[in-house]
Amino acid sequence: MILKNLIFKTRSYRRFDESFRIEENTLKELVELARLSASGGNKQPLKYLICTSPEDCRRVFPSVIWAAYLKDWDGPEPGERPSGYIIIIGDNSITEAFGVDHGIAAQSIMLGATEAGLGGCMIASIKREQLRNELKIPERYEILLILALGKPVEKVIIDEIKDGDVKYWRDAEKNHHVPKRPLNELIINF
Amino acid sequence: MILKNLIFKTRSYRRFDESFRIEENTLKELVELARLSASGGNKQPLKYLICTSPEDCRRVFPSVIWAAYLKDWDGPEPGERPSGYIIIIGDNSITEAFGVDHGIAAQSIMLGATEAGLGGCMIASIKREQLRNELKIPERYEILLILALGKPVEKVIIDEIKDGDVKYWRDAEKNHHVPKRPLNELIINF
Repeated sequence: MILKNLIFKTRSYRRFDESFRIEENTLKELVELARLSASGGNKQPLKYLICTSPEDCRRVFPSVIWAAYLKDWDGPEPGERPSGYIIIIGDNSITEAFGVDHGIAAQSIMLGATEAGLGGCMIASIKREQLRNELKIPERYEILLILALGKPVEKVIIDEIKDGDVKYWRDAEKNHHVPKRPLNELIINF
Repeated sequence: MILKNLIFKTRSYRRFDESFRIEENTLKELVELARLSASGGNKQPLKYLICTSPEDCRRVFPSVIWAAYLKDWDGPEPGERPSGYIIIIGDNSITEAFGVDHGIAAQSIMLGATEAGLGGCMIASIKREQLRNELKIPERYEILLILALGKPVEKVIIDEIKDGDVKYWRDAEKNHHVPKRPLNELIINF
């Protein structure tokens, strides 16, 4: 099952080899995957901002709020920051109800990133007004998700959940551990 | 690019060979794909109801609202109805904000369905109270999405969009046409 392997490898990565740069065309190909994915009522209200240059990345980075559960970590240090971003925005001139279109699109993009040898993180915790001002995003667009991308340098390990505690954590080797609920807890019958 | 091909084949199908039945285990494997996908704050608040028997399918079908743009079509006829459903519900005892978790999960599941030789449709237009009563879904669960699944018997064709009209339509051979916005309309710069 090729897809299962791809999904298994598509972890949320937050530390990257920043010296590795991403081609703009690579991110365009990832947006193409989102374009071909389902959209509620086929409205296709999502638009995409692509950032790959070090300068553009420096403009986006401060608006990203990183890893809420890692209290003494403010996000990746210089040298370990993302090499690219895809910012998903919703076009209010098409609809004001984006449903879960950006979740569908983001998953297609992140799976494609894995296939392209990249990795990253979907981020909904965003300093939205700061980002809007910095990138001069017109009011008609709603800022929905930031997909931070790069060449991951961290190992992410899926653990069995203990006592229902969903908080991810880092071990002494900086490996990132993510507790997941077991399948039999997710499938229910009434 | 294996993923692009998979995404390209993952169209929204609404007519099926109902004589083809789906194994319950197949749908469990699809939920496993959702389990391994990203979840906001790693909260993992989604649960899944699986229906594969003709009887269970008959209980779900009347609560699905089909294809809003096809005004003179009330949904698939007997013999062309889905052979299975995955109903995604949100557990309010974990969170009341599901973000786009169900979009991410649904895309993983639908891609997995394609890989398994199935197809289907994500449906958010649901007679929610009717479904809740029929399946006796407790109030603590929010009904988020129905994924209708089966062996597709229709051809879905992606067209270039004309005059911004996003409405899908059927041709004389009952092929389903879906107009998609071009990539250069989706990627924007400010």
